Amino acid sequence: MSNRYAVILAAGQGTRMKSKLYKVLHPVCGKPMVQHVIDQVNELTIEKIVTIIGHGAELVKDQLGDACQYALQEQQLGTAHAVMQAESVLAGKEGTTLIVCGDTPLIKAETMAALIKQHEKMEAKATVLTATTGNPAGYGRVIRNTNGFVEKIVEHKDATEAERKVNEINTGTYCFDNKSLFQALKEVSNDNVQAEYYLPDVIEILKSEGKMVTAFQTDNFEETLGVNDRVALSQAEQILKRRINEYHMRNGVSIIDPDHTYIEADAAIRQDTVIYPGTMIKGNSQIGEDCIIGPNAEIKDCEIGNRTVVRQSVAHDSKIGSDVAIGPFAHIRPKSDIHDDVKIGNFVEIKKSVFGRGSKASHLSYIGDAEVGTDVNIGCGSITVNYDGKNKYLTKIEDGVFIGCNSNLVAPVTVGKGAYVAAGSTITEDVPGQALSIARARQVNKENYVQNIKFNK
Amino acid sequence: MSNRYAVILAAGQGTRMKSKLYKVLHPVCGKPMVQHVIDQVNELTIEKIVTIIGHGAELVKDQLGDACQYALQEQQLGTAHAVMQAESVLAGKEGTTLIVCGDTPLIKAETMAALIKQHEKMEAKATVLTATTGNPAGYGRVIRNTNGFVEKIVEHKDATEAERKVNEINTGTYCFDNKSLFQALKEVSNDNVQAEYYLPDVIEILKSEGKMVTAFQTDNFEETLGVNDRVALSQAEQILKRRINEYHMRNGVSIIDPDHTYIEADAAIRQDTVIYPGTMIKGNSQIGEDCIIGPNAEIKDCEIGNRTVVRQSVAHDSKIGSDVAIGPFAHIRPKSDIHDDVKIGNFVEIKKSVFGRGSKASHLSYIGDAEVGTDVNIGCGSITVNYDGKNKYLTKIEDGVFIGCNSNLVAPVTVGKGAYVAAGSTITEDVPGQALSIARARQVNKENYVQNIKFNK
Amino acid sequence: MSNRYAVILAAGQGTRMKSKLYKVLHPVCGKPMVQHVIDQVNELTIEKIVTIIGHGAELVKDQLGDACQYALQEQQLGTAHAVMQAESVLAGKEGTTLIVCGDTPLIKAETMAALIKQHEKMEAKATVLTATTGNPAGYGRVIRNTNGFVEKIVEHKDATEAERKVNEINTGTYCFDNKSLFQALKEVSNDNVQAEYYLPDVIEILKSEGKMVTAFQTDNFEETLGVNDRVALSQAEQILKRRINEYHMRNGVSIIDPDHTYIEADAAIRQDTVIYPGTMIKGNSQIGEDCIIGPNAEIKDCEIGNRTVVRQSVAHDSKIGSDVAIGPFAHIRPKSDIHDDVKIGNFVEIKKSVFGRGSKASHLSYIGDAEVGTDVNIGCGSITVNYDGKNKYLTKIEDGVFIGCNSNLVAPVTVGKGAYVAAGSTITEDVPGQALSIARARQVNKENYVQNIKFNK
Repeated sequence: MSNRYAVILAAGQGTRMKSKLYKVLHPVCGKPMVQHVIDQVNELTIEKIVTIIGHGAELVKDQLGDACQYALQEQQLGTAHAVMQAESVLAGKEGTTLIVCGDTPLIKAETMAALIKQHEKMEAKATVLTATTGNPAGYGRVIRNTNGFVEKIVEHKDATEAERKVNEINTGTYCFDNKSLFQALKEVSNDNVQAEYYLPDVIEILKSEGKMVTAFQTDNFEETLGVNDRVALSQAEQILKRRINEYHMRNGVSIIDPDHTYIEADAAIRQDTVIYPGTMIKGNSQIGEDCIIGPNAEIKDCEIGNRTVVRQSVAHDSKIGSDVAIGPFAHIRPKSDIHDDVKIGNFVEIKKSVFGRGSKASHLSYIGDAEVGTDVNIGCGSITVNYDGKNKYLTKIEDGVFIGCNSNLVAPVTVGKGAYVAAGSTITEDVPGQALSIARARQVNKENYVQNIKFNK
Repeated sequence: MSNRYAVILAAGQGTRMKSKLYKVLHPVCGKPMVQHVIDQVNELTIEKIVTIIGHGAELVKDQLGDACQYALQEQQLGTAHAVMQAESVLAGKEGTTLIVCGDTPLIKAETMAALIKQHEKMEAKATVLTATTGNPAGYGRVIRNTNGFVEKIVEHKDATEAERKVNEINTGTYCFDNKSLFQALKEVSNDNVQAEYYLPDVIEILKSEGKMVTAFQTDNFEETLGVNDRVALSQAEQILKRRINEYHMRNGVSIIDPDHTYIEADAAIRQDTVIYPGTMIKGNSQIGEDCIIGPNAEIKDCEIGNRTVVRQSVAHDSKIGSDVAIGPFAHIRPKSDIHDDVKIGNFVEIKKSVFGRGSKASHLSYIGDAEVGTDVNIGCGSITVNYDGKNKYLTKIEDGVFIGCNSNLVAPVTVGKGAYVAAGSTITEDVPGQALSIARARQVNKENYVQNIKFNK
Repeated sequence: MSNRYAVILAAGQGTRMKSKLYKVLHPVCGKPMVQHVIDQVNELTIEKIVTIIGHGAELVKDQLGDACQYALQEQQLGTAHAVMQAESVLAGKEGTTLIVCGDTPLIKAETMAALIKQHEKMEAKATVLTATTGNPAGYGRVIRNTNGFVEKIVEHKDATEAERKVNEINTGTYCFDNKSLFQALKEVSNDNVQAEYYLPDVIEILKSEGKMVTAFQTDNFEETLGVNDRVALSQAEQILKRRINEYHMRNGVSIIDPDHTYIEADAAIRQDTVIYPGTMIKGNSQIGEDCIIGPNAEIKDCEIGNRTVVRQSVAHDSKIGSDVAIGPFAHIRPKSDIHDDVKIGNFVEIKKSVFGRGSKASHLSYIGDAEVGTDVNIGCGSITVNYDGKNKYLTKIEDGVFIGCNSNLVAPVTVGKGAYVAAGSTITEDVPGQALSIARARQVNKENYVQNIKFNK
């Protein structure tokens, strides 16, 4: 196998995105476009990957990190000029060079592998990745000669009527013999209206030198979509969404409405889990078997066990056990660790807390910066008062505690094992185990008081 | 009219579903596939329905109950073998036998009725339900002879080039002359690669005996969709969703986004109700006129009056009157009975309670196990303390009561007619009618205290 | 330029809508159909617009107000009869008259302008707006003669086989020479099955008089959709939704799922804002740059600054500043004014309140009828008690105040600058600045109490 290289074009500005954010950093299903491209290229065996950066160069480097080398294109003088920036890294090397645009987030490793494979088998100097479409208007057409090799690539505006009827188009992804590429690049001129150096001119140069140029046609036009504006961005999102959702469905996950379920690429979901519509599963979330997620759940970077239900709720950066019921309308904030058999009911917020096995906070509570033991019952409306305006403090609620409704636990405070806190109490001191703690006024009924017009509610 | 029988094939494993749940029990729009089939078959006049069960036999019987008879196919030796299991019930009977797969949840009674009608009118020994599709690859093709009768059914893999161009396919639904069917079944062999007994072989046997086999073509290919994996399951869901939503729209219900509105088959909705996107209406819900439901409402088994609004809320197994406003972000739990002119506002949970006409719980309340009279105002944050860690108790709030904010009503307790409970009170004893009940400490202002660093919040 | 007039047909009943609401008042993307038509017609330079009203006449007038004149069609005797009702306003005038149906909400001003332009340039007596469709069944076909003028319009039921193959259809929108129109209208007869006076008959009359009738074909069939039932209504909604969303995307707004994002026509959104799925933006909402809206946000008539996040929340008729974080599960009710750098967290309701810069209400609060200063911290579960069952009162919370959790502020009440309210307090009197105010009982721990079976929770 010859050496393989890749050049990723990621320097263009993306004016039509109308954005402060640099084009290739716009996310598709939660991941920047250029990261999708790099991730796919990285599945191939590639010796050196050179990403050509320009606009937003530092941000692209921050995004991609050590996944590739970088070459800076200071002025945007066309795609051939962009590739030339990789010269110091690649020129003179024997092997095959793959060129991919950073704004084609849907291209798959297997398609690029097939392109490279044909290129090397044919011993071509260049191979164009092509696709067919019913509506080729605007695309460069790939004109083949009688033996099926590429005769030329003709831009839409320069095409004859006959050429315009060709529906095999240039996707902008190529393989080149590396040496031939860099030799030909030197001959590309910018003698055209935009005064730019165009990469397809390399094909023409190689052809004029009698070199063999072939084309590899993918049967998946969608995969080659280039994103130049936010309408195309939303199309890429939809295609990738379907691809991800189909993957999960074939793995045994039921997705009630795959058009309206948003799962990012890195999420894992086990068999017989059902996802209801309007649900977003983001980041590195891992969801077990037989769960029910949604409708309208938003889960990010969570690890969730088996048989857990999350309805109309939001959970971020947390661990949630098995047989847990969350929601509707609950909010699990980061660094929460919710053990098995827990119930977190409606209008409950959990933040940075451990919540022990079998415990419940069924309604209208805030549990923050707390360690809650097993089999604890947090009454409706009860609150951990974790903040005094300056610092945050810890609340400990030991096993088997019963917290009455509308109570305040003013941290730092510990409620000992098996203790009871009476409803409506504000607890400022530790409660011993097995104690009843109460902090409220005695009830007074003022009879026939309602006739009076003035009273405090 | 001759006697009619039906055999429903529901014994296959459904490996490609990748599920612990038996294939025909997977739900489409909330109802198991095989139940859809039985419900449609039951709209016809059928003397005996025999469901062939195998994998998950007991669960299928639990699902279908007395709607049919059952025959157990202990080993899965093919579709002809499956039908043979009905022999003890059906063999020797005069009449027509309909055979339908339990994984075709979209087939309609009217289509089966038309199939049977043609079959009987033509006095055919077998009639195949066919459909046409632009993409017939993979399906068995129905080859007709010059008079339009069926010449043969040829599997895709066995088809000639010419036969593959035929786009009329075998849907897997059939009518047979019952006696001819069971005679022919005995002749079906398993001399093939899978060593299975195939039902289409019956057609070949009947043809070889010179019997008339006809085809009835439905113009609705979608209806014949067979579900073998969860991708197809989601397609069936989408098709049925559209069918249901179109039914309601033609009846005078406005559905803002029918692609994103999930109404189960048994729900009833009256005219001039508007359904906003993201809404699920499940079970036997009945919704009146001029209601506004959604966005993102989830309603299950509720009876709702007229002019009621349910926004971004969840309601289950409850009765909700007319002119009621619920939500956004409210939760009506089972066995609630909410009378007319009520307001249940944001972050309010109602559970197993009666809520009288004109009463309000506008914010942040939990009303559980309560009887609330008419014209009651439940202040923000007020809670019925219905649980002491062991038992649940009843709260009675009589007509015209005003409950101040952040109050606890510790059940069992009664607040008498027209009484007032002061804000912040924990009420543990009954409050007489017309009384003001107060249970809170007097306010102390410690001036210039904030300079001190240490204080209890 | 000749004088121009428009007649809008808005008198039909709309039986197939099955609605108490008059057909042309049914909304598409939040705006009644006839209002869409009027708004588009108003972008042209039109001397007089006459809307023909009949069923629901008063409601249509209420909707459209002074945007046009009205003519009442007391009996619904057909489209020609409807136009005749404009006779007193328009007959005898020189100029061009545009006729549009009030149930074609998608037609654009630019299409009508192009229609008028061709009509006047050709000096035709009538010009029919046509469109082509792959499925013309049911539509009137436009038959052109060899020079491209209109030969006749033939209804589907009256069309020959050859005519039925014509896929250019009559959209029901026309331009007429005004004088010719009203002369011809007098000759229209109702000698047909329905005994109605049909507007297309005018074309036939003009043709019989040797007048020139031309056709202007739009390439956007969708735009000409006429809404006769709620299925078509939902289609119109979907088409307009896509049109609006594409407009915003081309302007630099990211819309993750344009099929499931509902933005009304009058909303404005600035660049680099991202809209997550399930979001509705209604009325005259204005949203700044770099905001994150959704998922599942519902915003109506709000003005929102830059870099503000609104997740899973509802906001109506309010002003929300920059760098504000709202939700998930918050509710901003009308007449709220939320300044910059504010946090309104989960299960918080704000109503008719000012909320000063840098202030926070992070969880489970209700702030109604309040003036909250800057840098205020509203503790979890704190409530403004603004209602005594008869009246609503104001709460003032001055700059830098800290309100402890589960407190009640019983209005009218003022908490002075920099004051602290202890958790669990019910504040009924003003708190001086810098004071600590406390209104709660002292905690008592009853050790080993839990063994006792009976206790108040």
